[in-house]
Amino acid sequence: MTVKQLSLPELVDACRDLGVPGVGLWREPVQAYGVEAAAKLVRDAGLTVTTLCRGGFLTAIDPAERAAALADNRRAVDEAATLGTDTLVLVSGGLPAGSKDLRGARERIADALAELGPYAEEHGVRLAIEPLHPMYASDRCVVSTLAQALDLAERFPARQVGVTVDTYHVWWDDTAPAQIARAGAQDRIHTFQLADWTTPLPEGVLNGRGQIGDGSIDLREWQGHVEAAGYTGAIEVELFNDVLWAGDGRELLAETARRFVEHTA
Amino acid sequence: MTVKQLSLPELVDACRDLGVPGVGLWREPVQAYGVEAAAKLVRDAGLTVTTLCRGGFLTAIDPAERAAALADNRRAVDEAATLGTDTLVLVSGGLPAGSKDLRGARERIADALAELGPYAEEHGVRLAIEPLHPMYASDRCVVSTLAQALDLAERFPARQVGVTVDTYHVWWDDTAPAQIARAGAQDRIHTFQLADWTTPLPEGVLNGRGQIGDGSIDLREWQGHVEAAGYTGAIEVELFNDVLWAGDGRELLAETARRFVEHTA
Repeated sequence: MTVKQLSLPELVDACRDLGVPGVGLWREPVQAYGVEAAAKLVRDAGLTVTTLCRGGFLTAIDPAERAAALADNRRAVDEAATLGTDTLVLVSGGLPAGSKDLRGARERIADALAELGPYAEEHGVRLAIEPLHPMYASDRCVVSTLAQALDLAERFPARQVGVTVDTYHVWWDDTAPAQIARAGAQDRIHTFQLADWTTPLPEGVLNGRGQIGDGSIDLREWQGHVEAAGYTGAIEVELFNDVLWAGDGRELLAETARRFVEHTA
Repeated sequence: MTVKQLSLPELVDACRDLGVPGVGLWREPVQAYGVEAAAKLVRDAGLTVTTLCRGGFLTAIDPAERAAALADNRRAVDEAATLGTDTLVLVSGGLPAGSKDLRGARERIADALAELGPYAEEHGVRLAIEPLHPMYASDRCVVSTLAQALDLAERFPARQVGVTVDTYHVWWDDTAPAQIARAGAQDRIHTFQLADWTTPLPEGVLNGRGQIGDGSIDLREWQGHVEAAGYTGAIEVELFNDVLWAGDGRELLAETARRFVEHTA
């Protein structure tokens, strides 16, 4: 999603040229290209698929909506397995229209995980609950902190449910380092993502994530936290940014790779 | 600030006509009108000044900036005392330019409170640290949660430093009810403010606070939390909203008063 302007073949070429060893994919471009074909494309290039984004949106009350969401998440698990990644990132979903009940919404996520966790495990896929910044709590993700994500994940085996640590979402939270340690001790850090925090935020606050090094986050410090907690997996960069997307995708990937080297240990 | 389009005399008239018994004032319009004159205007109308907004911005590293901020906060205390309110709300300030050190910024706030707390107490004014929503952490307020605010406040006597509970800033936080109980047990809830959470957020995320009842927050539940914690003070409504400000101020105040009756206990 960092280089949304590139097609899958362009992305794979650019990663190979730059020596980027792995890539996190999103479902929509994978589905458009064909899941089997995308898997072959990436495999043939020697690239690892680090994660698939995203399942989730598990907060519906309406039974038909709820059943549709569960079915869609099973498809997402299937797609992850086909792509050869062991991690499906979950964006849990916001409040249903008219609801003010955050607790109830969070509980419905747990109910859904009880159904999806075993299905994912059977397919060799772990679900990674991603706490999103609290500014998304009403319309995108009622799970706003690592503590909340772990409270949910802990009800299930770590091989079924863990968490995503994304610097953009947790950087403001002085309790997050302790929660990262808690997650690491349980082997529940399923992926680690980087984006920087820049302001002013754009309208809708969705596509203003800062390029690595441009913002307020000490990225190396957060890398230190996850590594001290035992994390040895890939470090992903996930920039949603309308300005960056308007430029050349290959240049953006090259610049992002340079920034990554500069701002991580 | 809810009816920013009204002048101070218009505001006082409208409050009297509607039976609104108290008003939280902001420094800029008070200074423009004259502090003594504003105090007389409000007093003659029989209105209580519930709080003065705002002091704070205490995170500067540069010694001259820091001294200027402390001097400005002393003036804010003087103004609060002149207006006859016992509470000065503090918006603590963001990261200095180029800094990524949230911990250091929070520590500088504590240093400043050590100087300002005794000065405020001498003038019969309590400082009320307001945790702002985490989306303001970099550029406006590095204090993002009630827990962080109380960790700072607890270093000082409650008659010097407490907290502001504003539903807009804390509604997403499942640990906030316990922190409200903690604050209440120490007599540190110095004011309670209402605004509702609506999306999409506008560019800059400053002036999109929702009218009471229009958003995702169960305001009566939060009122229940502060009252269960022993809070008996005023309930303030603080809407920053460009759309609401563009309309008629007296109608907005009347509508806000109706919403207040409808959505509080």
